[in-house]
Formats: sequence, C-alpha cells, structure tokens
Amino acid sequence: MTLTTTIANTTKDTTMTTHFHGVIPPVVTPLTTDGDLDVVSYEKLINRLIEQGVDGLFILGSTSEVAFFDDEMRGRVLGEAKRIIDGRVPLLAGVIDTETLRVIRHIRQAEEIGVDAVVATAPFYAITGPTEIENHFRALHEATELPLFVYDIPVCVHVKVPVDLMIKLGREGVIAGCKDSSADDVSFRRLALANRVAGSPLALFTGHEVVVDGAFMSGADGVVPGLANVDATNYVKMYKAYREGDWETVRTEQDKATELMEIAFVPQGVVGPAAGVGAFKTAMQLLGTIETNTMCVPLPTLTGENVERVAEVLRRVGQLA
Amino acid sequence: MTLTTTIANTTKDTTMTTHFHGVIPPVVTPLTTDGDLDVVSYEKLINRLIEQGVDGLFILGSTSEVAFFDDEMRGRVLGEAKRIIDGRVPLLAGVIDTETLRVIRHIRQAEEIGVDAVVATAPFYAITGPTEIENHFRALHEATELPLFVYDIPVCVHVKVPVDLMIKLGREGVIAGCKDSSADDVSFRRLALANRVAGSPLALFTGHEVVVDGAFMSGADGVVPGLANVDATNYVKMYKAYREGDWETVRTEQDKATELMEIAFVPQGVVGPAAGVGAFKTAMQLLGTIETNTMCVPLPTLTGENVERVAEVLRRVGQLA
Amino acid sequence: MTLTTTIANTTKDTTMTTHFHGVIPPVVTPLTTDGDLDVVSYEKLINRLIEQGVDGLFILGSTSEVAFFDDEMRGRVLGEAKRIIDGRVPLLAGVIDTETLRVIRHIRQAEEIGVDAVVATAPFYAITGPTEIENHFRALHEATELPLFVYDIPVCVHVKVPVDLMIKLGREGVIAGCKDSSADDVSFRRLALANRVAGSPLALFTGHEVVVDGAFMSGADGVVPGLANVDATNYVKMYKAYREGDWETVRTEQDKATELMEIAFVPQGVVGPAAGVGAFKTAMQLLGTIETNTMCVPLPTLTGENVERVAEVLRRVGQLA
Amino acid sequence: MTLTTTIANTTKDTTMTTHFHGVIPPVVTPLTTDGDLDVVSYEKLINRLIEQGVDGLFILGSTSEVAFFDDEMRGRVLGEAKRIIDGRVPLLAGVIDTETLRVIRHIRQAEEIGVDAVVATAPFYAITGPTEIENHFRALHEATELPLFVYDIPVCVHVKVPVDLMIKLGREGVIAGCKDSSADDVSFRRLALANRVAGSPLALFTGHEVVVDGAFMSGADGVVPGLANVDATNYVKMYKAYREGDWETVRTEQDKATELMEIAFVPQGVVGPAAGVGAFKTAMQLLGTIETNTMCVPLPTLTGENVERVAEVLRRVGQLA
Repeated sequence: MTLTTTIANTTKDTTMTTHFHGVIPPVVTPLTTDGDLDVVSYEKLINRLIEQGVDGLFILGSTSEVAFFDDEMRGRVLGEAKRIIDGRVPLLAGVIDTETLRVIRHIRQAEEIGVDAVVATAPFYAITGPTEIENHFRALHEATELPLFVYDIPVCVHVKVPVDLMIKLGREGVIAGCKDSSADDVSFRRLALANRVAGSPLALFTGHEVVVDGAFMSGADGVVPGLANVDATNYVKMYKAYREGDWETVRTEQDKATELMEIAFVPQGVVGPAAGVGAFKTAMQLLGTIETNTMCVPLPTLTGENVERVAEVLRRVGQLA
Repeated sequence: MTLTTTIANTTKDTTMTTHFHGVIPPVVTPLTTDGDLDVVSYEKLINRLIEQGVDGLFILGSTSEVAFFDDEMRGRVLGEAKRIIDGRVPLLAGVIDTETLRVIRHIRQAEEIGVDAVVATAPFYAITGPTEIENHFRALHEATELPLFVYDIPVCVHVKVPVDLMIKLGREGVIAGCKDSSADDVSFRRLALANRVAGSPLALFTGHEVVVDGAFMSGADGVVPGLANVDATNYVKMYKAYREGDWETVRTEQDKATELMEIAFVPQGVVGPAAGVGAFKTAMQLLGTIETNTMCVPLPTLTGENVERVAEVLRRVGQLA
Repeated sequence: MTLTTTIANTTKDTTMTTHFHGVIPPVVTPLTTDGDLDVVSYEKLINRLIEQGVDGLFILGSTSEVAFFDDEMRGRVLGEAKRIIDGRVPLLAGVIDTETLRVIRHIRQAEEIGVDAVVATAPFYAITGPTEIENHFRALHEATELPLFVYDIPVCVHVKVPVDLMIKLGREGVIAGCKDSSADDVSFRRLALANRVAGSPLALFTGHEVVVDGAFMSGADGVVPGLANVDATNYVKMYKAYREGDWETVRTEQDKATELMEIAFVPQGVVGPAAGVGAFKTAMQLLGTIETNTMCVPLPTLTGENVERVAEVLRRVGQLA
Repeated sequence: MTLTTTIANTTKDTTMTTHFHGVIPPVVTPLTTDGDLDVVSYEKLINRLIEQGVDGLFILGSTSEVAFFDDEMRGRVLGEAKRIIDGRVPLLAGVIDTETLRVIRHIRQAEEIGVDAVVATAPFYAITGPTEIENHFRALHEATELPLFVYDIPVCVHVKVPVDLMIKLGREGVIAGCKDSSADDVSFRRLALANRVAGSPLALFTGHEVVVDGAFMSGADGVVPGLANVDATNYVKMYKAYREGDWETVRTEQDKATELMEIAFVPQGVVGPAAGVGAFKTAMQLLGTIETNTMCVPLPTLTGENVERVAEVLRRVGQLA
C-alpha cells in the first residue's frame, strides 16, 4: 500500500500527485483575553507542531473555532498561518459556511492567501439530501483549481455524506479526499475498501483522537487530531509505526493519546467546543504553549474547577509536574 | 386582550411601544433562471402581499433562501425590499449566521439599510447549550438598538431555545419577541402562558401554516406563514376573525389554508426547502406572481411531474382553472 | 365487527354511532409501596373519573406504566378495571409489546377479560419501516374481531405512522382509529383533513394535554389526557363546549388545564414517566385520590423537594389549600 | 494482559473465573416458511459454528429476531439450542424486554433451561435516564446467580449505557461484562481503558462486524458478529491472531469479513433486520446452511433482485460458485 495518493483529476484533464497524508492537526486559534488573535502564541504553536513532525496543518477547521469568526478574522487567522508555516508543510484551509455561494467566497479568500487545499462540509442549516450534497461539491470544484476535501462532520451539519457519493466524486476528480469526523467507523471502513477497489482516488483522513489505530487498520492515509495541539508526538510516532507495520507501537501510542484525551471528558457543566476545544486550550495554557485559554463569543471559557480537572489529567499522564 | 406589545427595555432604560403583530409573511426571493434577484417579480410579490392586507414582512428568513446567499446578495435582497415596501408595513430582517460575531455583521448591514427589527436564531454548527444561547442573544442585543426577535427553529439549528430563557430575556428587555418555528406546540402554549404571567414582554409569532388556529388559541400575537406567499388572504381573514373572537371563521379559514398547503407535501424525490419553498415558488409561478420557480444553488428546482402535482392541488382548491 | 365510526361531527352536521369519542383518560395504575396493585385506590380513581363525566377509559397505556408490568400484572390491572368499570363506559385496552406475535398474545388476554377495543403501537425495538408497520396492523386485525386503534407514539417506539398509511388502513377497515401521541400537530391536522375527505373511517384522538383546543380545531373526535387522572373536569367541560361550538370556553378550560399541567414540568433530576406520571401520582396522592405515589421498578418515586414543587403548583391553581 | 476475565463478585461474596472470551456469534433462528422453528437447520447451523471454532454462542439476541417471538417460541429456541450445544461451548441467553419485571421473567425461563449467562439491554419503550438504568441492572443481578452481561444497543433501546456506570457496576460485581453494539468506538476505547485501570472486572465484547480489528486494538475480550452465521472462520482466525499479536493477519482477515459483510448493504427497499438479518439468512440459504430465508412477522423476507444482490456478493468473495 502506498499512502501517497495519485489523483487523476479527469474533469480538469490534469494529473497531479499530492502528498496529503500523515498527521495534519486542525490548529487551535489562540486568542487574547479580548478575543483577538494572539499572534505570538499562534507562532509558538505552529512552530511547535512542525517541530514535533506533523505532515501538514489544517487551518480554520471546527477546532479553530472557525464558525465563530467573521470573515475578517478568518482572513487574519489564515493569513498569519500562511506566513508562519512559510511552506514548511502543506496548508489545508477550512472554507466552512452554510451553502455553496457562501463557501465559494471563502474559497476565493483562501486562494488569495495561497493555500494547498480547501476543506468543505456538506451544506447545512437548510435540510438537504444527496442531490444537494452532490451539486454542492461539484459547484465548489468548478469554482477552484485547488484540491477539494470533504469534511464529513454530521455532528455539526446533521447529514452524513454517503460512501457511494464520495467514491463517485473521487473517481471523477471532483474531490481529492475526505476528513472523516463522522464517528461512523463502519462507514469509514467501507469507504476505505471501496476507495482501494476504485484505485485509491481519495486521500482518507480520520478525525478521531482515541481510535486512530482502528482507522489505520482500515487503511487511512492520515489523521487530523485536535488533541495534537496539546501534544502531537504520540500521533507522529503512531503514524510512523503504522507505515512500518509496527502495530504494537501503534497500539501503545494510541493508548497514551487516549489517556491524554480524557482532558476533553472531565469538564463539567459545558458542552461541545466549550468542553473539547476548551480543554485543549486549557491544557495548552497550562503547558505554556499559548497565553490564554480564552474562547470565542458566545462560548464560556473554562475556569476554576474545570481547569483543575484538566490539570489533574495532565499530571496523571506525566505532562505536568 | 391587547395584541400590541409594550416592551420595557430595561437594560437600555428606554420604553418603546412596538406594533409587531398579525400576519407577517417570510417573503420568498424570486430568482431569474441564472440565480440573480428578479426585481420585477419581487416588486409584484411584495405589493401583492401588502394589498392582501399583511401587517409586516419578514425578509431574509429561511423561506427567502437566506442561507444560500452570499453577503452581497443578502444586501441586495434586503435593500430592494426596503425600497419596495417604502414604509407601508414594518420590515423585519433575518440576520442568520452560525455564531455571534457573524450575526452582528449582518445586523450592521440591516441597520444601514434601515429595518424595523432583526430576527436571529440560536447559534448553530458548533454544539452549544443554554449558556451559549443566552450569551449570544445578550451580545446581539448589546450590539444594536433594534428590537431583537428570537427565531426558534430547531429543524435548522438543532437546538430549542428553552421557554424559561425566553421569558428571562424578555423580562430584561433583551429580546422583543419570538418567531416560533419549533413545531413544539406544547412549548409554545407554555411560553404564551408564562409570557402573560410575566406581563407580556414578548410578541409571540408562530411559524406554522396548518395549525395557526391552535397557536391563536394559545394566544399568539401573530403568524409568519410561508404559504402566504402563494395567498395571504386566508391568514389575513383568520387573524381578523381571531381578534374579533370569531373562532368558526378562524377554523374554516385554517382548513382552507391547510388544503392549499398540500402543495408542499406532494413533490417527490426532494427534501427540505427544495420541496417546501420549491412548491411555494412553483405555485407562485403557476399563478403568475413570479416569473420562474428557480431555486438557489445547490437546490434542485421542481420540474415535470412535481410541477404537475403542485398544479393539481391548486386546481383542487380552486386557485387554478 | 363494525369499524364504521359514528362521530357527532359538528362541522358536517351528521350524527354517527360509535362510542369512541370524547374524554378517554389513560388510567394511572395505583401501586402499594411494595409495587403491587392498590385495588382500593384503583376503585376510587376509576369511580371518580366516571363521576367526573369521562366518555371511556384507556387501561394499560403508557401512563399506566404498562411497559413495566409482567403479563400477570397486566392481567390483574385489566381484570380489576373491567370489574370496577362494569360497563358504565367503554374500556379500551393497551396491548403494547415489541412485535406482532407478542402483541397478539396481549390481544388474547384482553379478549378473555372482555374489552371494547384494543390499542397497539407500531412495532418497536427492531428498526422497521412502513412495510413492517402495515404488515403489523394487518396481522393484528386478522387476529381479532375487536376494534383496533393505532397508538402513534414516536417518543416511545421511535417511528411515526405515516398519515397515508393510517388513511389506507382506515378505509379498508383494518383500524378503527388513532390515539395520536406524536406531538406532531401538523401531521394530525393533515390526518384529520384526509380522514374527512375519506368519509371519516377513523376516530381520531389526541394524546395532548395542553393544546387539546388546537386538536379540537383540527376536528379531533376526542382526547386521551394523562392529566385527567388528577382532574378530568376541565377536559369534560372543554369537550362539551367543543361539541356546542363554544370556543371561548374551550380556550379558557384549556388554559386552566395548562396551568395544572405544570406539575409535570417542575420535578428536577428525573426524566420520562418518572417525571410525568410521577407528577400525576404525586398530585393524586396529595389530593387524596390514591394512597401512594409509588412508581414501578426501576423508576424512582418522587420525594422531598419534588413533591413540594408539585404541591406548589396545586396550590397556585387552587386545587390544594 | 490476560483475556480471561476474573470476576470478583463482591456482593455475593464469591469469586469465580469465567471464560467468556473470543468469538461468540449471535445465532440466527432458522424458520420454516410458516414461521415455526426449523430444528433441522438450527442443528446444522449450531454444529457448523462449533466446528468452525467459536468460543460460545449467544442465543436470543437481536440477530435471532428475539423481539419478534412470543414467550413460548423463546422457550423453544433456547431449549433446542441448549440441547444441541450440549455443553460444548458456553451458552449466553438474551433476556430482552422493555423493563425490569418483564426481563426477570425471561431470566427465570433461561435459568430453568440452564444457560451460562444472561444478556440484558437497558430498559426501553419508556424514556429513562441513568438512575433507571442503574436500578434496572441492580434488580436483575439480585434476581439471579447467573453472570449478567449488559447489551449496549442504543439503535434499539435509544439510550447509551454510560462508561462510568458500566465500570461502577463491574467493580461491584453487578455485571460481568458488556456486549457493545453502540457503534460508538470512542466510548468503547474509553470503557476498555477504564476497565483495565479498574482491574478488568468486565469481559468486553464488540458487536461490530467490520471494525473488529479496531476493537481488538482497544483490548476487547471478544466479538459477537452476526456475520459469523454466514462464515465464522475469518473471526476465529482474527481472534487467534489477535491473541498471538499477529496484527497483519487480524487486519487481512478483517478485510475479508468486511467484503463479505457487503451482503447486508446491498438489499434495496428494506431497512433494519429485514435487510441485515435478512441478508444473513439469504446467504445461509444460498450456501446450504439453512432451508429457508423466512423472516418473522411482520418482517418482509428478501426475494427476487435482493436475493440476487446477496448472491453476487457471495460470488465476488468466492463463497459461491
């Protein structure tokens, strides 16, 4: 198995070899206490991730709090990321919005800044079916030369992109791959199998943190773990071991990451990103990677007991003294 | 019972008397076949609605396909509506977007154009709880002098605004009212009762089409029926009869509207707005109110058999020869 | 078996002959503290309901805790009800179980005891679609001469019986009516309308407590309100006023019932029947109708603060001194 | 790590070493065309499974169509299984019903027939929370000396048993293990980790078919795959390789099983067990293991094109000529 995917981009009659694989964390957006981008922390974070050996960075994904930023802030976050990364690893940009025409505006912004790929969800807010999802990705592809990834995240958009549609769009070169945050591992296994049968047109990434070893067993090309913002080393080791067929190491590293991931389950009285991304930010602050754990309006920032609960997990796994 | 709501806007220390009541249709956006705003049809539609006796117009709601427009198109649709309405009835503007900062941008646009109230949903895309919802509406209220309505639409945002929170925000003058598209009539009845106990700080609108009589029984101040785009007369008569305590007429007019609403249930192989708003547009085209039944990308436009099914309902209820 | 329902349908000015109409409460099952049937309280409760003027009694519905009883206890509850009612009003028996063959066993038991109709849900536990639902009701009908009612309760069985299927089964005499506990009032209105068009083969009951006036506006033949166990008089007055076209009384009585229904919303830290039926039982105990508010294993019985919260509502509405 | 679990049954003050591990298929119930138990086919099927090397058999699980059988049929299916198995492998019996008292009746039946463990779901039909779930399993445990397994299957009972509760009940000896059919692999990984930390009181089984390798990575003690009814050899090899740390074989065998599992995804126009168990039965009939693919009332039996679709998968993977 080769993990480098060759995409026959039939509709545009170009053949390109992409290198989207490995560990590509969705980068957290560090904020100042008044909600502005904390550029110093951002620089520290991105450099740290690259030094830890990641294979790419996903900017403006759900973990970045993209849905909470206005367009200007999106531009700032993406522009600074572009400047800091400086070509050291591929930059994938989230272009998340309700429907096609709005997403295309974000694609334009991403193109102007200069990114390596764009990542779009199925349409949301309005109820839509397979027809709309297919129309949507075709329209996005027609609007750009950039590789287009499907961000399959039913917990946010409340619809699952069907396996068959994904394969069809992959075969035709409409999409270059998928970031699967569906938590539907049966679907992911079937997608991986169907993709291989189809000649592997798609680069397949799992959005999991605690069962990435299972996704590697399924043949995933990589992983997009939010937890890597706290520490990417387990995932980098895991991916390397996976490429070398060293499954015991894959499993051991996964167990370590799973223990660390408990930070996201200990906060009480909060839900969604306020708990998950909130725990990441809190851990990062405790570990000195970023300055504050401030969340974007209207999300509550973790305080008091919840900070202590996160610290306790960090101490238990030896990340904090 | 007075249906005119007096809002004691405590946080801003101003008392205002608003006149948000009656039939306030969410206006469909007529498009040309290439997806642009069809201004001629829009003028015809808005004038027709006002002539049929509506008490206000809700622009950029779900029925307008707001989620499918980019910001420029939103501005055009709202600006043209403002121009056409020309102060004849109140203009309520939807300011729908994922999270607080994005919604505030749309509020700014609405303020510049000059609207009478803004209508915002709970935050969506990210999972949020009551804390975020409360923070969200408080932040929106602080950002504007305009009356703020809650658009309670779980089918789109996947969370219900709790009755208690609504009353609390009403008492404090944070919100001026609610458009209830939750389809949870038990909740609406409890909201109406709690609102009366609280001194009626909120103007309460139902988003129903076929059980508006029930909402009137609950004490609703008005109705926001998408179906009124096809024909507003039943709703105007129903509301008048309601004010006069003529419940048999309320019921009879509701039955007529229910029969007409079958247009939204007959299309096959389509879901969501492609079926519902699609049926409205198709009926409006068949009746000569608008030029085309074109839907926004990526929604399929009703064609062939589905147009015939809509026509059949129109003939059955005597709207079409 | 006659499946033709005689409904005094005011809008149609015709009188028909079945006895399934009006207020038919789902009777709570009073328990001793060790979980046995409290026959003395049961007798008191049933007599009180009949004296308050109900038009029938629904035994072994969800409100009776039917799902918590073994077959022997079901037989006891149904047998005692039969004995106490003694033909004064029609007895409808719930025959609730996962799938067809199990339901048929309960129908046999109901037949032996002697009931006037049986009430069955769509199949549950296993995922099923419209084909299974149709097969299920057809098989039940073939197994019995008793009138068969559909108990449409998606909150428990996680599927909605489609309006079209209901009408089809009604036209063919497979089902005699429906108890609609779907909380989907749009569907109920469409069902009521389609039923009238079909010649009213179905007797339609709403399972609502707080928007029964809306259901009457839709043309319901009756109501099955759990709250009537606490006090049936509002519903009896409401139904009478409905038959007489006195809508202001309908509305006023509904408002009173809605205020009383707050007992079901005040308990904290409990969900489902432990809150709802628990509140009914607690109120009934406080009012002296039954001896204990004991719930069936594994449901927690309301105690302490929660009892006080229920009492507070009863005092507020003047039921308790 | 030892995969044989030692259960410290603290409340009953006995310590026992159980051997619940490995491949324990949920056995399909072969039916005659008129819906009776096909004993000859049942014998053939059970013998074949034991010959293929399974480590136990789960009778009266969802795959057996347990929810569709009346009590008499349940007794027959379980009694015949007991007779045929004749002590060669452990027999685990499903005791599935809505609530506690009903489940206890099935436990009595299972005890009389003589089984090695009972498997119960969380309560269903009525909405219940963690309190009810805990009360339920405690009451079941008090009612029997048999090892009690939690059958965690939200798709059927619409509630997930929380990880913390599972661990708590395991530590106290209330439950002996879990069959996880939740499809929530993150939860399963966290359960496996917490179980190890707690000293492994629970034997953990996955109900997956196509991502069993991932469950083994998580440290599962075994697997309960419905697909094994068609062919158990992949799972037997996979489990053996897992015990030997031969992960490449685990993965390869999983890929083969995944290809075979496509039989459950190809049927069209059917849902739930009619598709899944229906496909198993159809494949078993095509392969000569059972006589008919008849499903229990009200499930439709696969016919025509759907049988051909299943056959095509079997041919593709080399099971059928």
